[in-house]
Amino acid sequence: MKIKYTLLHKDTNTKARYGTLTTNYGTFETPIFMPVGTQATVKTLDTDELKAIGSAVILANTYHLWLRPGEDIVFKAGGLHKFMNYQGPILTDCGGFQVFSLASPKDISEEGVVFKSHINGERLFLTPEKSIEIQNKLDSDIAMSFDECPPYPVTYEYMKKSVERTIRWAKRGKIVFNNPNQSLFGIVQGGEFENLREWSAKETVNLDFDGYAIGGTSVGEDKPTMYKMIEYAIKYLPEDKPRYLMGVGEPTDLFEGVERGIDMFDCVLPTRLARHGHAFTKYGKINLKNAKYKDDFNAVDKSCDCKCCANYTRAYIRHLLVANETLGQRLLSIHNLRFLIKIMEDIRIAIKNDKFLDFKKEFYKSYKQGEDDEKRI
Amino acid sequence: MKIKYTLLHKDTNTKARYGTLTTNYGTFETPIFMPVGTQATVKTLDTDELKAIGSAVILANTYHLWLRPGEDIVFKAGGLHKFMNYQGPILTDCGGFQVFSLASPKDISEEGVVFKSHINGERLFLTPEKSIEIQNKLDSDIAMSFDECPPYPVTYEYMKKSVERTIRWAKRGKIVFNNPNQSLFGIVQGGEFENLREWSAKETVNLDFDGYAIGGTSVGEDKPTMYKMIEYAIKYLPEDKPRYLMGVGEPTDLFEGVERGIDMFDCVLPTRLARHGHAFTKYGKINLKNAKYKDDFNAVDKSCDCKCCANYTRAYIRHLLVANETLGQRLLSIHNLRFLIKIMEDIRIAIKNDKFLDFKKEFYKSYKQGEDDEKRI
Repeated sequence: MKIKYTLLHKDTNTKARYGTLTTNYGTFETPIFMPVGTQATVKTLDTDELKAIGSAVILANTYHLWLRPGEDIVFKAGGLHKFMNYQGPILTDCGGFQVFSLASPKDISEEGVVFKSHINGERLFLTPEKSIEIQNKLDSDIAMSFDECPPYPVTYEYMKKSVERTIRWAKRGKIVFNNPNQSLFGIVQGGEFENLREWSAKETVNLDFDGYAIGGTSVGEDKPTMYKMIEYAIKYLPEDKPRYLMGVGEPTDLFEGVERGIDMFDCVLPTRLARHGHAFTKYGKINLKNAKYKDDFNAVDKSCDCKCCANYTRAYIRHLLVANETLGQRLLSIHNLRFLIKIMEDIRIAIKNDKFLDFKKEFYKSYKQGEDDEKRI
Repeated sequence: MKIKYTLLHKDTNTKARYGTLTTNYGTFETPIFMPVGTQATVKTLDTDELKAIGSAVILANTYHLWLRPGEDIVFKAGGLHKFMNYQGPILTDCGGFQVFSLASPKDISEEGVVFKSHINGERLFLTPEKSIEIQNKLDSDIAMSFDECPPYPVTYEYMKKSVERTIRWAKRGKIVFNNPNQSLFGIVQGGEFENLREWSAKETVNLDFDGYAIGGTSVGEDKPTMYKMIEYAIKYLPEDKPRYLMGVGEPTDLFEGVERGIDMFDCVLPTRLARHGHAFTKYGKINLKNAKYKDDFNAVDKSCDCKCCANYTRAYIRHLLVANETLGQRLLSIHNLRFLIKIMEDIRIAIKNDKFLDFKKEFYKSYKQGEDDEKRI
């Protein structure tokens, strides 16, 4: 079946909204953060651990799964849920972002993108039709329309041509889309140009998707520009459909996105930071490889309810990281993901009680203070 | 408190024996296989997973923990159990094996061994007293006496000097040993020389340890020689103390050891094989990186009750391994460890029913057949 978004409450002070999204694999509340399972696994975690941290929906990458193991293997397994043993909703991206960021050189034409595989250099050709066909076979709950995600900055002329082509690509994808169990989201682009964001949003909405994403943020622009990009686009998106801000996962950016009306976020940041030994805490990010933690027998974050913080110390995690033991990266991945998921849980409660801005203020006060402390050390 | 071994049943057809070992962290049955947690973590697993696979006792490496994080950090944490959050019995080795296998060049004298750290080349000096002092601080349940573990083969003259020195080292270690919560095992050496194994066993037993290990096997000798090394030594070991065959973990070697009266085994093999994509199965070892598993949606081993086999397919594990996702190595580590632990559970039941040889025959029939099949492919 198609997903169904229900708007349940609008914050009285901001554009933040609380709702639910019903999928083939259950109903979850929004706004929500989605862990990224690039290659049909959220790096270092198993599916029991995803459940334990309260993960309701995850993202998987079409580009990566197309290359390995190939969409036909996943199809033969009975779809992505069965293949990776995850009985929760899954969103697949369209592959565009990876093609434009990982693969090079590439050659963009009206037809699609020619590029070289980042694994073996093989010449590959991805088109809107191919992206949708792969996603139909992966059988995710939500598929994404194929788009170009230009870097920042590009000229107005380039961006105008790009968004116009992305709309033509979106139409072509819709035509071949063929999976009754899957929903399809359109993607708004347009960079920092207000009128292009407006045009892209209106044209995308005209195509009538099951949800709408804002793409092309977190590609090099500064924070004020990013927040403007959201504002330029979101006012043209319908209230009765979910809105997804792609690739954003800094704790403060989650607040800024929610405040502007975003329902869904995804980002590799929490797991990537973990693999480099960094942890989110109530008082900002810390680097656990730092020598000062070698005999610190406190939890990574005393206020956190995750398995890592309940059972292990900073000293032990540091030892694991220094000794190259993957358990250290796993425990920090669990913690960092739980940290963002818990923020979203608290944000939802705050919205329901019309206290979003109070909660934001409280969070920023301790989090930003800690960030400054860490930089000073 | 000191450990207590209770011999409960002797197999009527072989020297296999069933018993229990009581420690500070509970009582477990023997014979048993101990997963190796080299650096205070069984590679890729957390302590919940160790519990889930039925692991009763694990091993940690004194050499590695001395170098990282250092015994003082572990002591400050409240001992190894608290440091790594493992509420089960832990055995620490003496560091000798690592010094002789990892570190080089080294210089062995009566006083101890001078060698270079495998991490940073730092000049280090390990003595029997230092090994015991480190283990006392680590606060494991069972500590091992410091020994020399010569390679295979060495001359009779070398081995004679070595076992005599190892006995003098054992005496020195006993003198400084100072942890009332810890038990101390002696190690029998002597290579393939029957009279040196006899001498070493008798002299070690004379020193009156809480248990006895047979060391210096799996160091390059062939299987018949290894089994003789066990036989030469074990007949001089007292019946009322546990007997531990160090560094042995091939499934068939577990049977051969148990048949000769061994109670405890440890080996890095199951986790090391897993990291290279190999899995134990009822029908022998398989290499899951093999292309033929790419669309094999069966469990790694249908007859296995582990989390990996209950939830994931060979095709998915293969995908994770090929895509360098650590979850693949973890799931196979869980499986391989559970495979050996389950063999020991079944062996214990077989001994209690005087059916050890029947079970051995049944296991070998399918396991060795499969090994041959895999080699042919």
